[in-house]
Formats: sequence, structure tokens, C-alpha cells
Amino acid sequence: MFTLVGIGLGDADDISLKGLNAVKAADIVYLEAYTSFLINSKPEELTAAYGKPVLVADREMVESGEVLNEADTKRVVLLVVGDVFGATTHSDLVVRCHEKGIPSQCIHNASIINAVGCCGLQLYRFGQVLSLCFWTDTWRPDSWYERLKSNRDAGLHTLLLLDIKVKEISDENLARGRKIYEPPRYMTIGQAIEQVLEVERSKKLGAVAEDGSSFAVGVARVGSQTQKIVAGTMNELAAVDFGEPLHSLIIAGDVHECETDHVNLFRLTK
Amino acid sequence: MFTLVGIGLGDADDISLKGLNAVKAADIVYLEAYTSFLINSKPEELTAAYGKPVLVADREMVESGEVLNEADTKRVVLLVVGDVFGATTHSDLVVRCHEKGIPSQCIHNASIINAVGCCGLQLYRFGQVLSLCFWTDTWRPDSWYERLKSNRDAGLHTLLLLDIKVKEISDENLARGRKIYEPPRYMTIGQAIEQVLEVERSKKLGAVAEDGSSFAVGVARVGSQTQKIVAGTMNELAAVDFGEPLHSLIIAGDVHECETDHVNLFRLTK
Repeated sequence: MFTLVGIGLGDADDISLKGLNAVKAADIVYLEAYTSFLINSKPEELTAAYGKPVLVADREMVESGEVLNEADTKRVVLLVVGDVFGATTHSDLVVRCHEKGIPSQCIHNASIINAVGCCGLQLYRFGQVLSLCFWTDTWRPDSWYERLKSNRDAGLHTLLLLDIKVKEISDENLARGRKIYEPPRYMTIGQAIEQVLEVERSKKLGAVAEDGSSFAVGVARVGSQTQKIVAGTMNELAAVDFGEPLHSLIIAGDVHECETDHVNLFRLTK
Repeated sequence: MFTLVGIGLGDADDISLKGLNAVKAADIVYLEAYTSFLINSKPEELTAAYGKPVLVADREMVESGEVLNEADTKRVVLLVVGDVFGATTHSDLVVRCHEKGIPSQCIHNASIINAVGCCGLQLYRFGQVLSLCFWTDTWRPDSWYERLKSNRDAGLHTLLLLDIKVKEISDENLARGRKIYEPPRYMTIGQAIEQVLEVERSKKLGAVAEDGSSFAVGVARVGSQTQKIVAGTMNELAAVDFGEPLHSLIIAGDVHECETDHVNLFRLTK
């Protein structure tokens, strides 16, 4: 049996009772540790909180399907930060289970995709979720721009998920076959705003105001005790220190009167 | 202190440890019982599972802000099915707390908006979430149609949330001032498909194929032991008995190859 368990956004105690019961009944418990990152807990803390050893499964172990190796005879749990289907790789695992005749199930939890409602903008007024990647000298993807424009044209809010780089190998080390990992990097709200404005200034289609005056909300560490939410113009937010990761950025569409009072609680005050 | 606690989708044990701790520490625990509905638990079962009396807060108690009456001096928890900000009324409560100087916090959980990823279509390929209402003889809202078309034109999937009518009073009883509630009604996937096709046949803008051949996924009781997911044409799904509520319908946009294998696990087999 293979069980995907969403462990929520922030802390070791964000797991559900159902999820914890699955962990307790499991023979092997992995933590998927590359598509996201648990804000306030290290794997050792999960081990302590759950009373069960938690093994870190890195990208190779998840993508190769190695985490399923013993799932035909043992109860294997894969803990996933947020909810279970935030990344295609988890869908792949369900498909592989089916092919191998291994029963699988999933236990849901909060993810940024629904928890972002805490910023005061209503979930049913969001358009497609978009992702921003760190640019390199040779790779500067901006295909999100058209979709941002399309959301904005329809008056919809846009949740931008910001890049996480964990266990990266530099081009130089890769070329030399050295498995030396770079320190993890997490895109900040400031970096995201800079990237959005840079693309706007180049494409000039008006997805956002190129002077940085469009209304947006920055959210950091949603769901944790240290959660920070600030609403303001993109320029204002770019100057805010949101602290530790994870950060996400919401570019507002039309703000409806039923949203104004709530989102205004997070306005920067002079 | 006022704490909104999301209790997830299905069962009493979908609450998080953090949420349960808030319940245990509370002086008063309400269950918000009109914007959604806990699939497999009655309030009495929550009371038993949490070891704490759970009081049902109906629409009037929530919308009037009555649930906040004692929150200035007591620890009041409002349990919300799914996540906490699925309905504008919960945002209103946060704003009211702010106005009254009552500290508030929220504890997130899964909602259909992220849990729908279990159907095999990727969350980041969904457009705006839409809601279908039961029609009456005089009120047949179809403003969702344009937005469905816009999602489909962009190749995006559309999650349709289906109406829930709880504690309705008939026009006749309302006119006579009688507080007699009609039995609760929950829109089925079949009813939703019928409504979508009826509007398509009238507007003929091609949001879906009017012959019912567009690809869709029906999901019922997501997150519970009796969850049912079926993928097929709208016509095929209309003939499926999805059983007890709650139902939701996903009208697929372009299905990407990274989604095909997963969603096909739920295809109707002849």
C-alpha cells in the first residue's frame, strides 16, 4: 500500500489525524523534499513529532520511483508538503502504483493554492496559478506573462508561485560529473516583482503597470506562526523584508467590494 | 480570541493536530453548517471525536456575527468544512474581529479547490473556479457560461462547485412568515451537466460541445473513504450514479500528456 499524505504548510502539527494515523501504521515513511519545503520543521522534528523515523526522499528517489520499491509488501507513506497533488511527479507515482498493482490512496491537506484565501482576496476570483523560475544567463522563461495578462484582462487575481532550487548542481560541476550541490535558493517576493516588471517593460502589453503601481499582495510562510501578509503597490512590496521563505506573490485583478475590507487589513501603513 | 479552523473534506479525523489543539483549548466551539457540509460526520460525531461539545452555527448566527459575541473574553472556535476562506462570510468575520479589537487567527485545511488534483488533472492548469446554482422558475443564472468559455478557450480546466441548499424557506412559507425549512438539496453531477448543456444549446458559443461529447470528470465525496471519481464524456457522466453528496464537476480543457495517464485511471470502462 502506498499512501500520499499532505502535511500542510507550516508546522509538524499541521498533519491531519487521518494522516498521522497512516504514518503510525506505516512500515516506511518518506518525506518528499524537493518540490516544496516545510516552513518550520526539519525532518528530525517530524520524526520526533510523529514518533516514527522520517526518511528524506530526494528528487532522484521520487522521480525514479524508488520510493515504491517495497510498497507491494509494505505500507509506505510519502509525506508531501502542502497537498499531495501540487506536482506532476506525485501523479506519476499514483500511475506507477496502478501499473504495478499496488493499491494507493491519498490524504489531503492545505496547500498555498487554497490557503492564499487568507490574504483577503476571494479564491473564486483567482485565475490560473502561475510559476516564476529563477532566470539564468541563457534561460529567461516568460511564458507566464501572457497568462498573467489574460487573468488581469478578465479581472482575476493571479497567484504566482515562486521558484525553489534545492540540490542544484552548477553547470561547471555537472560538466565535470561532480555531485556537489549548491546551497538551496528560494525566490523572494522582491525578486519576483523585479522579474514581472522587467518582462512588462520589455513586452509592454499592460499585464501590470510598468511603473510598479499595480496592486498586489505578498504572503510569506502562510499557515505558520510567523506568517506575513502585506498588501500594497508592487513598488511598496518590493521594499518590504518578508523574511524567511516560502514567499508567494498575488497580483490582484479587480478588487471586489466584498474583498476590500479584508485585504485592506494588510495594507502598508505609513 | 476567534479562531477559524478548517476541518477538511470528509471525516472527523481530517482535522489537523493544530486545529484539534485549538478546539481543545476553546471555551466555545461552533460548526459553520450552511456554506458546506461534512461528508461523513454529523455534529454529534465531531463532538465525540473532539471530546468537546460542538454547537451548530446556522446562516443567521454566522452572518449576523453572533458567533463573535463572546470572543472578546473567551476562546471561540468556528469550524469550517474544507478550508476557512471558501466563503466571503468568513472574511467578514475576520474584518469584524479587527473592528472590535478581537484577535483572530486561522488554521488551514484541504478544500475541494486543491483536493480536486486527485482527479489527475493538474492544479496549475485550472482556470477560474465557477459555481452552479439550482435554477428556479424565475431565476436561471448563467453568468458562469462566459467564464467557462474563457477557461476552455485558454485550454484550462474548470472546477464547477455545485449548489447546496440548506435551511431554505419556500416562497409560500416566506410570504406567510413561517420559518419552515425545506429538506436540504445538493446538486448532483447529472443536474450540473444538464444545466451546462442547456445553456450551451441556448447560447451556442461552444464552451462545451452541445452534443455532450466534451471530456469531463465527476468527483463525489472527495477525501472520504467512499470517494468516487469518473472521467468520460459529459453524456457518459450524466448516466453515472455518483451517490451521496457532495458532488463537483470538472470540465476539462486541453489534457496535457503529463495528465493523461493519471486521469485515464478513472475512465469509464465498458
